[in-house]
Amino acid sequence: MSTIGPEDPRTLPRFAGSATFGRLPRRDQVDHCDVAILGVPFDSGATFRTGTRFGPIGVRAGSRLLRGYNLAQDVMPFADQQVADAGDVGCNPFDIAEALEQIRGAAEEQLAKSEHLLAIGGDHTITLPLLRAVTKKFGPVGLVHFDAHLDTWDTYFGVATTHGTTFRRASEEGLLDRSRLVHIGIRGPLFTKQDMVDDAGFGFETLTSTDVAGTPPFAIAERVKRRVGDAPVFVSVDIDVLDPAFAPGTGTPEPGGLSTRELLALLRGLKGINIVAADHVEVSPPFDHAEITAIAAASVVYELVSLMAARHSP
Amino acid sequence: MSTIGPEDPRTLPRFAGSATFGRLPRRDQVDHCDVAILGVPFDSGATFRTGTRFGPIGVRAGSRLLRGYNLAQDVMPFADQQVADAGDVGCNPFDIAEALEQIRGAAEEQLAKSEHLLAIGGDHTITLPLLRAVTKKFGPVGLVHFDAHLDTWDTYFGVATTHGTTFRRASEEGLLDRSRLVHIGIRGPLFTKQDMVDDAGFGFETLTSTDVAGTPPFAIAERVKRRVGDAPVFVSVDIDVLDPAFAPGTGTPEPGGLSTRELLALLRGLKGINIVAADHVEVSPPFDHAEITAIAAASVVYELVSLMAARHSP
Amino acid sequence: MSTIGPEDPRTLPRFAGSATFGRLPRRDQVDHCDVAILGVPFDSGATFRTGTRFGPIGVRAGSRLLRGYNLAQDVMPFADQQVADAGDVGCNPFDIAEALEQIRGAAEEQLAKSEHLLAIGGDHTITLPLLRAVTKKFGPVGLVHFDAHLDTWDTYFGVATTHGTTFRRASEEGLLDRSRLVHIGIRGPLFTKQDMVDDAGFGFETLTSTDVAGTPPFAIAERVKRRVGDAPVFVSVDIDVLDPAFAPGTGTPEPGGLSTRELLALLRGLKGINIVAADHVEVSPPFDHAEITAIAAASVVYELVSLMAARHSP
Amino acid sequence: MSTIGPEDPRTLPRFAGSATFGRLPRRDQVDHCDVAILGVPFDSGATFRTGTRFGPIGVRAGSRLLRGYNLAQDVMPFADQQVADAGDVGCNPFDIAEALEQIRGAAEEQLAKSEHLLAIGGDHTITLPLLRAVTKKFGPVGLVHFDAHLDTWDTYFGVATTHGTTFRRASEEGLLDRSRLVHIGIRGPLFTKQDMVDDAGFGFETLTSTDVAGTPPFAIAERVKRRVGDAPVFVSVDIDVLDPAFAPGTGTPEPGGLSTRELLALLRGLKGINIVAADHVEVSPPFDHAEITAIAAASVVYELVSLMAARHSP
Amino acid sequence: MSTIGPEDPRTLPRFAGSATFGRLPRRDQVDHCDVAILGVPFDSGATFRTGTRFGPIGVRAGSRLLRGYNLAQDVMPFADQQVADAGDVGCNPFDIAEALEQIRGAAEEQLAKSEHLLAIGGDHTITLPLLRAVTKKFGPVGLVHFDAHLDTWDTYFGVATTHGTTFRRASEEGLLDRSRLVHIGIRGPLFTKQDMVDDAGFGFETLTSTDVAGTPPFAIAERVKRRVGDAPVFVSVDIDVLDPAFAPGTGTPEPGGLSTRELLALLRGLKGINIVAADHVEVSPPFDHAEITAIAAASVVYELVSLMAARHSP
Amino acid sequence: MSTIGPEDPRTLPRFAGSATFGRLPRRDQVDHCDVAILGVPFDSGATFRTGTRFGPIGVRAGSRLLRGYNLAQDVMPFADQQVADAGDVGCNPFDIAEALEQIRGAAEEQLAKSEHLLAIGGDHTITLPLLRAVTKKFGPVGLVHFDAHLDTWDTYFGVATTHGTTFRRASEEGLLDRSRLVHIGIRGPLFTKQDMVDDAGFGFETLTSTDVAGTPPFAIAERVKRRVGDAPVFVSVDIDVLDPAFAPGTGTPEPGGLSTRELLALLRGLKGINIVAADHVEVSPPFDHAEITAIAAASVVYELVSLMAARHSP
Repeated sequence: MSTIGPEDPRTLPRFAGSATFGRLPRRDQVDHCDVAILGVPFDSGATFRTGTRFGPIGVRAGSRLLRGYNLAQDVMPFADQQVADAGDVGCNPFDIAEALEQIRGAAEEQLAKSEHLLAIGGDHTITLPLLRAVTKKFGPVGLVHFDAHLDTWDTYFGVATTHGTTFRRASEEGLLDRSRLVHIGIRGPLFTKQDMVDDAGFGFETLTSTDVAGTPPFAIAERVKRRVGDAPVFVSVDIDVLDPAFAPGTGTPEPGGLSTRELLALLRGLKGINIVAADHVEVSPPFDHAEITAIAAASVVYELVSLMAARHSP
Repeated sequence: MSTIGPEDPRTLPRFAGSATFGRLPRRDQVDHCDVAILGVPFDSGATFRTGTRFGPIGVRAGSRLLRGYNLAQDVMPFADQQVADAGDVGCNPFDIAEALEQIRGAAEEQLAKSEHLLAIGGDHTITLPLLRAVTKKFGPVGLVHFDAHLDTWDTYFGVATTHGTTFRRASEEGLLDRSRLVHIGIRGPLFTKQDMVDDAGFGFETLTSTDVAGTPPFAIAERVKRRVGDAPVFVSVDIDVLDPAFAPGTGTPEPGGLSTRELLALLRGLKGINIVAADHVEVSPPFDHAEITAIAAASVVYELVSLMAARHSP
Repeated sequence: MSTIGPEDPRTLPRFAGSATFGRLPRRDQVDHCDVAILGVPFDSGATFRTGTRFGPIGVRAGSRLLRGYNLAQDVMPFADQQVADAGDVGCNPFDIAEALEQIRGAAEEQLAKSEHLLAIGGDHTITLPLLRAVTKKFGPVGLVHFDAHLDTWDTYFGVATTHGTTFRRASEEGLLDRSRLVHIGIRGPLFTKQDMVDDAGFGFETLTSTDVAGTPPFAIAERVKRRVGDAPVFVSVDIDVLDPAFAPGTGTPEPGGLSTRELLALLRGLKGINIVAADHVEVSPPFDHAEITAIAAASVVYELVSLMAARHSP
Repeated sequence: MSTIGPEDPRTLPRFAGSATFGRLPRRDQVDHCDVAILGVPFDSGATFRTGTRFGPIGVRAGSRLLRGYNLAQDVMPFADQQVADAGDVGCNPFDIAEALEQIRGAAEEQLAKSEHLLAIGGDHTITLPLLRAVTKKFGPVGLVHFDAHLDTWDTYFGVATTHGTTFRRASEEGLLDRSRLVHIGIRGPLFTKQDMVDDAGFGFETLTSTDVAGTPPFAIAERVKRRVGDAPVFVSVDIDVLDPAFAPGTGTPEPGGLSTRELLALLRGLKGINIVAADHVEVSPPFDHAEITAIAAASVVYELVSLMAARHSP
Repeated sequence: MSTIGPEDPRTLPRFAGSATFGRLPRRDQVDHCDVAILGVPFDSGATFRTGTRFGPIGVRAGSRLLRGYNLAQDVMPFADQQVADAGDVGCNPFDIAEALEQIRGAAEEQLAKSEHLLAIGGDHTITLPLLRAVTKKFGPVGLVHFDAHLDTWDTYFGVATTHGTTFRRASEEGLLDRSRLVHIGIRGPLFTKQDMVDDAGFGFETLTSTDVAGTPPFAIAERVKRRVGDAPVFVSVDIDVLDPAFAPGTGTPEPGGLSTRELLALLRGLKGINIVAADHVEVSPPFDHAEITAIAAASVVYELVSLMAARHSP
Repeated sequence: MSTIGPEDPRTLPRFAGSATFGRLPRRDQVDHCDVAILGVPFDSGATFRTGTRFGPIGVRAGSRLLRGYNLAQDVMPFADQQVADAGDVGCNPFDIAEALEQIRGAAEEQLAKSEHLLAIGGDHTITLPLLRAVTKKFGPVGLVHFDAHLDTWDTYFGVATTHGTTFRRASEEGLLDRSRLVHIGIRGPLFTKQDMVDDAGFGFETLTSTDVAGTPPFAIAERVKRRVGDAPVFVSVDIDVLDPAFAPGTGTPEPGGLSTRELLALLRGLKGINIVAADHVEVSPPFDHAEITAIAAASVVYELVSLMAARHSP
């Protein structure tokens, strides 16, 4: 089956042309679609800096340099499968509950027409409606969660659905397979010692940023793969898993994080897992410089798409 | 009556010391207070860029250079009256309705203890609860509104209380004296021609940015003073009344605006009006450069405080 | 005749959705088109800073806030006529001669399908091939040229087609009607006194930035309108006509320029001229801050489109 | 003993509220104080870029995200002990000698009222008067010095007390216990080979940035702990120990430095040393981006406070 | 007499080549010199932001675009007279008194070899030693002082020679001709009403920024020319005379200032005065954006050099 | 033999003085020269972001902090040999072919007068003419190439000499010794799998960024040294070998790169190779922040000069 790939940079320079992710076709330009990339411009669940509403625009801008062959994973992610940009969800910035429904609806719509969904946020609140849509299709999923923060807190200002409470809600709703959950990159101060206890109670295994520093990436990846097994997995990457030096453009930066090279190595190490959907969240372009956060984010999305392609390859 | 003024820059440099507005005392450090300055860190009503939640911090930072004698108005705004910094309202960033109540409550509390209130936003949504509190004390007020935008639109995403709908709501609630309302600095494209008709229907007189360009400031000011008369007036300054060159750090920048010099001249020209409360909104530090927006904003607040002082002066 | 306008911001926020100019339809989404907006991402003719290759992306980003009703011109530029975004010309960044041919070809193609062309550069070199295409359709044109620089120099490094030599070449090729040419905003040091003599020899009348400062905009506009008359006119706006405070994101900034408000007033004052095509050049996003240059540029394009609409209005 | 901790972010968001370090109480709000945090806004001893006079403001701003439980050290640094913000020293920016006396005086005053002192600079010149005050209370101290530079040069422009000469002066004055001194992170070119000889002559052991790169953090920390033993230690962290990627906001950046994760790991590894006072210097906000330097600095201060708390814990 | 001018941009692009002011020859490359441009990288007299120590580097960088013919003044400032770059004074950043002597010495040395001196600061403290040198050659001088601030305060922290006290000291030392002094651009709050009284007592006439706004530049210039007459005049331009929008890169920004166009017009209007020396101070590159402050400053220096050339022209 | 070194920072501060690399003498100030540093301000071969035309200015600015003794290599690179700054090549920005000839000519001229050449770009296109000049003197050379990209692509837009095709051209022209070529730092997506095959066909050994991550620097360096042996070697460092966190100021940033510390360690590990010439390319100051890229680049040049010095040392 032939696919439509990115615009050709040898005739239309990368500083021009389509503003879709990777200069790929729009969803309405292809009949069949293996991976739908969906922008979710929502940041009303953020507790500190906002600006991730500009994340989808930013990550797309950062994706202009992507080329076709992923040497590290040895796949052609935009040729071995059809990838397309499904545009942005129009969601209400003033009403979290309504927005979550709009996001869920849009995600379901895409999953009905495409095999995989890859969402670009937006803040981490969006993962809850994405999981609601994904589990409707695939049942409860395992989760590989790259983040500086646990995101299993309970409420802020009495509100239950914010970017810091997503996985507690997801767990309570039965969206997650508790035996196949892992956080990677956790660091920074917590509210209390109880946070870790609660979090473990939801079934999470935690690999801190310090753990990553002291262990070869393939070993970390093997551990994660053992944890999540072969059943459907959702991968959620919060860009603040990276150190602020690598990702200044984010909302709740936490010093002491991973390097981009480490994160890419960990993702590549996951080759073979059954990744059914994924998201990439918390890129806040107003705080970025020279698009370094956006470019790092685009490379993460590229690895995620490549992981999906790896399942299609012979 | 003796007052407590700013920290002395000859012994504690301006790059150090208190982070209160103008390095003034905190509200809890003075018994009597003529003007309470209240931070309202709320930006969940914004339709484009956010970041004005950092506005109170930013404007206070920009106020470090303020000195005691206002040459243009010939008053000592921090000596002729007691001014103090009342800190920030803790308001819910996830629930507009609750936040508006929290803001109203905090404003009422300050107005019960101080003669005048000067709020620093935050986005323009905050003016609605401020007007609710102010009119409770003073009755319906006249309004001098500096802004690029009318802010009399109806709803966004079906939501009635956003930063673009404040004055329609205020009018509907009877908070404004329809015979004493004026917009200054309006410009930029509107949704439809009907916008101006609706707006005039609420009683607003409009002086566009072009009007300001072609008329001496004192003449504009005289026209405004005739409009608002001697009864209680609320002055609301949206920093986007300035051209983006003068105020890049804002959420919905509109080219073709006023210069800071023009705005200051207009404010000084209002000397003598019965300004009972005021706010200054829409400063978004993440988009600022070298604090130029914050410093311009602080100078606007300084003129507003001076207008209040002018009523106290002999 | 019904037209397709921008995406509705009340359901799809302005920080999301289409990356076309003004969130308008793409050229391939409309059958009939009155004004085709064409990106020309070319900066290989620049003598100092480059970066205007990112100009089309940047100006489109800056156009997200545009609304439908132009109060100052009293037209609905996106409703009274069909405007669409024709995407970018793929032109060779390594070979000026070939690129100019590609630009000319693309412009001719658009002009064959649409009544008006509005190009977004790119550096000022692009105006030469645009004029070649425009005059092929309309014959020699009058020119209203907003710029800090004359752009009638002869060569740099022996090269005849750069961003500083465009109008000398255009004049030599007979593309311009020598009786209907005007520069507005000229300032800054020249190479020699002879520059002005040469320039006048090509038929240009010059209104310096100082002239603009001392004269009401309508009077300047009247003078320009008298100069260009009723025959076809090309309007070329180099963003460096603005002072660097208003447009830091440009390649050869020149202090002492116009304010954005002045430029917009001059453009509005041209209402009624027979503008057949236009361009907007020299926006260099890498040197911009908080998109203030891009937003100013988008507002200029908006006025140009409105001038075209004014001819369509009853 | 109950302590007063930071403001509660669940009712007063982190983007609002107190501008004290970590949103902790001011020194005048608590009777007892274990750790006094003192701002020292002085940068007149800097040889290249200045701007560290804004360091105390900047680091406090960067501390807004700190939470209460230090997972890595397993302490509650703001609950296990009373920490308070003692404000800024008013010191003369025009006269180094007078400023050093003012700093020494302020430090002594704090040490008379609090057990530990943690100063936030300012440039590295400030460590000399701090050491004078600290040794008056505790006698000559061991020193753990994180820095790219030795800071044991002799004079600049004939001046003996600058940010590059602090530890030579401290050694000459007998403030340091020569058997318990260590530099960590040294790199970059020196003036001459003799610099290292002189430095060793003062008793310093040097662990270069390269040494850190090739050794696990715990092993480095063990080596430092053996060196400094159980007697009173002063820890001085110059933010330029980090690579400029992690700390662009500093005055004499030196490529090839530590990552923030490495620095935090080294600090945590020091748990158990008898840290009596500390400082954190050379953060220059004008050169920072998105507060990444300030946030890294705040996390360093947090670890230092945690080290002090660890001595209080059971 | 033939002169050596700037490097030719048609063979050596402006983004390359010499880093001297205007790409002019160094002082050691010419025998005769009419105007010596001297960098004075000193900012230890600043009360708020520093960074003007990088001013000479910055303004030279901003001067790369200058061309040879000044249309407004109708002179060739780099051809009608010999202008050369004398490099930087090496002055002690840690000792104000010694630095002032070094600056005075360097200025005297240049004035002994060249007719005119044009110094680029540095903060405004440097004007005092410059005036000492200039008056040694020319006797007490008239002064045209462009600034937001009076700079006639008495002391800060008990120190008499700072950037805010220069002209009080100069007056006390008899360096100024009290009948020929004028401030232009004054604005912003003062310490007390007495400031203006004291200032007038030194002989200053004051034209505020508001005065400039309401009067045509030629009229202001005429008034200044009448004031200073035909005797030797020193022109001192503090870049903060401009509004922060035009000059963000400065140490004590004051909203409501002049536009660059106004400042250039005022300077051009002074054509014919007997300007014997000049300085340009307070450019702080760390706070600049896209070099807009530096470029404005370079254009001011260009006008000052042109004023000197105008005396040489036939 | 005595040499002339940098200006003395103890009398002329580093924020002042000469704008030459390392504040070294100009080439015309010394008779004998071991290493000539040549600026090559050319970026017309770039495929994405430009701005490297400002690279020579930027890297020189970043070199102000360099001191004389290289501790890691134990040499005095500016004293053990004569190093001088040869200024910039004036090359045509509008005509790649002519520019390459101008660069080759300038390089040959320097190599005729100096033993070694060290060029500062500019984009990577410049390495082709440099190699043409170098091999004319030394014959075909080995190559140590630090880069994220292979730069052995064939053409862009039909053009054979761009920054992505340099080493294919060099190989075809016989400038490279195919048995002694190595790429270090390669990463990111390629066009197709064939790219690696082609590249190996030119004789390159490739050490990816991932290889560097998993191997001690000395082991990598040993491997490189074995590869290049004792014959003449050219070292070409593209700053994008660093991760964008360390080098945001570049044209085609690629996430997952080396740290500066790793790069410096690799360079130091090459001590002893027969480096006859070198270049450092792709620094784009418009995208830099706080000069961190420029400073990293200057430190790389310093190590390269030190490698050259090591051959001179006893």
